[in-house]
Amino acid sequence: MVDLHDLIELLPSGAVLTDPDSLVGYRQDWARDPDAGTPLAVVRATCTADVSATVRWAEQRRVPVVPRGAGSGLSGGATAVDGGIVLSTERMRDIVVDPVTRTAVVQPGLLNAEVKRAAAEHGLWYPPDPSSFEMCSIGGNAATNAGGLCCVKYGVTTDYVLGMEVVLADGTAVRIGGPRLKDSAGLSLTKLFVGSEGTLGVITELTLRLLPAQPRQSTVVATFADLTAATAAILAVTGALRPSMLEFMDGVAINAVEDELRMGLDRSAAALLVARSDAPGAHAAREAEIMVAACEKAGATEVFHTEDPAEGEAFTAARRFAIPAVERIGPLLLEDVGVPLPRLGELVTGIAAIAERNRVLISVIAHAGDGNTHPLIVHDPADADNTARAHRAFGEIMDLAIELGGTITGEHGVGRLKKAWLPDQLGPDVMALTRRIKDALDPHGILNPGSIL
Amino acid sequence: MVDLHDLIELLPSGAVLTDPDSLVGYRQDWARDPDAGTPLAVVRATCTADVSATVRWAEQRRVPVVPRGAGSGLSGGATAVDGGIVLSTERMRDIVVDPVTRTAVVQPGLLNAEVKRAAAEHGLWYPPDPSSFEMCSIGGNAATNAGGLCCVKYGVTTDYVLGMEVVLADGTAVRIGGPRLKDSAGLSLTKLFVGSEGTLGVITELTLRLLPAQPRQSTVVATFADLTAATAAILAVTGALRPSMLEFMDGVAINAVEDELRMGLDRSAAALLVARSDAPGAHAAREAEIMVAACEKAGATEVFHTEDPAEGEAFTAARRFAIPAVERIGPLLLEDVGVPLPRLGELVTGIAAIAERNRVLISVIAHAGDGNTHPLIVHDPADADNTARAHRAFGEIMDLAIELGGTITGEHGVGRLKKAWLPDQLGPDVMALTRRIKDALDPHGILNPGSIL
Repeated sequence: MVDLHDLIELLPSGAVLTDPDSLVGYRQDWARDPDAGTPLAVVRATCTADVSATVRWAEQRRVPVVPRGAGSGLSGGATAVDGGIVLSTERMRDIVVDPVTRTAVVQPGLLNAEVKRAAAEHGLWYPPDPSSFEMCSIGGNAATNAGGLCCVKYGVTTDYVLGMEVVLADGTAVRIGGPRLKDSAGLSLTKLFVGSEGTLGVITELTLRLLPAQPRQSTVVATFADLTAATAAILAVTGALRPSMLEFMDGVAINAVEDELRMGLDRSAAALLVARSDAPGAHAAREAEIMVAACEKAGATEVFHTEDPAEGEAFTAARRFAIPAVERIGPLLLEDVGVPLPRLGELVTGIAAIAERNRVLISVIAHAGDGNTHPLIVHDPADADNTARAHRAFGEIMDLAIELGGTITGEHGVGRLKKAWLPDQLGPDVMALTRRIKDALDPHGILNPGSIL
Repeated sequence: MVDLHDLIELLPSGAVLTDPDSLVGYRQDWARDPDAGTPLAVVRATCTADVSATVRWAEQRRVPVVPRGAGSGLSGGATAVDGGIVLSTERMRDIVVDPVTRTAVVQPGLLNAEVKRAAAEHGLWYPPDPSSFEMCSIGGNAATNAGGLCCVKYGVTTDYVLGMEVVLADGTAVRIGGPRLKDSAGLSLTKLFVGSEGTLGVITELTLRLLPAQPRQSTVVATFADLTAATAAILAVTGALRPSMLEFMDGVAINAVEDELRMGLDRSAAALLVARSDAPGAHAAREAEIMVAACEKAGATEVFHTEDPAEGEAFTAARRFAIPAVERIGPLLLEDVGVPLPRLGELVTGIAAIAERNRVLISVIAHAGDGNTHPLIVHDPADADNTARAHRAFGEIMDLAIELGGTITGEHGVGRLKKAWLPDQLGPDVMALTRRIKDALDPHGILNPGSIL
């Protein structure tokens, strides 16, 4: 048993939690990994020095460190390890926005929504918008290279990370990149740490690129009697222009959302698309009309176009609400597979076949414009057979995505939940390359062991 | 002396050049490093298998390999090493554009301009636009994380690289990333290889993200009687909107360009800005008017606004022509320092002081909107004292950029020319981190030895 005394002495009073009741809430993230361990302690760091001291202490004693943001991860990337430390950044919440360089310097514990709000106070915008933006941390966003609904036009987290401070496995804090849109000095280390899921270092500060406030959006809502027409409409829309949002819900999700929100959605529809344009001024309405025509031509049963931002936001919120709505049917295995856009139809129909074959209910929602889907596998933990079939479907969906030239995770990360499938996607040579980098940066394997690799 | 016979046998007939006359042209890139070595041979690869075979052969014999695109690099990143192989990708020139996913799969030897043209045939656009776009290769662009004039709004090369095939130091070809806007599976390896200047692997294929064709641009040209007014105008423009281009030339460059092009530029001006907007439809003209007002308010002596694309392109071409124009005064040491935008004024006035102190002529041109400047140091190689002063100024400019929180290279890369200054920018810990990654990926140090590290 490792003695925690010197760790407690290194850190501010109250930073180290060890009582069993406090530890429980830090064992799992939203993936609810049943194999989660019980940590030795939780460190709630208040600053970079706390993170450095903790990691240095842990490395000297070969104690695993699991970095944790808001704990809203869906792949088990913040799953506690028996005898390890959970290193929470929840108390590191500073932000400074510089409107001249259009950048924000932010600590990892701030929530995505709080970053957006701080930027908005200066008339600026931080685009990445995971559906969980009200409760996910910006550090976790960087660690998983999180996406969201805006990515079809605005890209993902890595596109907005210009620099960072990161604590390496030996406790050294380094600064890489900075508030410069262009910087070719040395290796692209900033980009390597984005998406590394806490396996290479612990991010203690981010320098984010901001954009001017997003223009007012026009919104198109279309329903379809079959999935093929809906995926044809998706291709028609993205082929004609770059929507600022292009989201998909299947019939199960439509009904689950309608059960809760009573918006008057067409319960008989097989699919619903919510598409938006933020082109400046009158161009948004013009682009919306193009999207209306594309949906009609693809065979939509009903198409609706609104210039009212509140109405558009209501449909967007409905789409964001789809996961909790479907979850009311039963516990979910949440998927995150993506494919190149032309293969989206094959993915969606393939998932339907997987659901049928395994006799499980799978609802598909998707950031359709970039081919990233979230199949929601409803299962019954009390029914072992059902649970086994759900897990089989979970794996088969990833197999299908890989077969279609896609990815097992578009925006949630690999964590522990998907690591068994990563070699199938990347192949042995890329896995070996990954391992070489991991070993070079974390030779004793203390950082988030069991995640990704 | 290494026996080249088995290398020659591994490769297609004519792929290996060994006669001294052929080798001469492959010793240096545009940095004209006087310490360039003479290679054992030049391999002009025709495909990934050729690259793999060459690198594997070289690794087994510990022969250095210097990857080379079009040889237009300005930092000596493609400087031949005595007894090494120069591995040229100039014959790898395939491209396939997929308008549905808006991506291009391209081999490294294709020129940037050729990528742009292939995309344009599908109504699409590849934004990054180094001034050398007609003669620089897309592989070299990826290796240096090249920028250009559009970056102020559209970012740099890494923002457009979704995937690649890369040959590692042991000759293994791996595929990383792919035509997916979102992919969080595993480490962000694609981004690590972008900007690695051939020190971690040899890029043999790139998957690039494309955008819809750029809308027609409005153009504003403004002249200023002093540098301070010009840098104030730059901040006023970027504070008000996101221009699609915001370029700067000082008085020396204005006169050098005017000597050649006779456009009627104001020879008495201390600075000239060329600013453009590509906002859709009438919004471009509206943004141009905002930029006109910003320049006037900052004290411009003359401001000119045109909606004529040809006229706008003529001013852009004039700016692009500034480097060759200034070069007619004398040979140049070409700088590439960048600073956070609010420090641009200090950088520009500091460079003037460095020029005066060292009694050398320095003309400053800049991608002003992102703080990336190209001070052009004119020197006389026949005059040893002048050359020494020019080199001193070259170093002092980098020192100044670092002092101002900037970078020694915004878009050209470190190569050999700037490597002595890299530790000053990055510090010992980041240098050590860089070295760990280099050693992990290239344990025998055969890939572009002497570049970056």
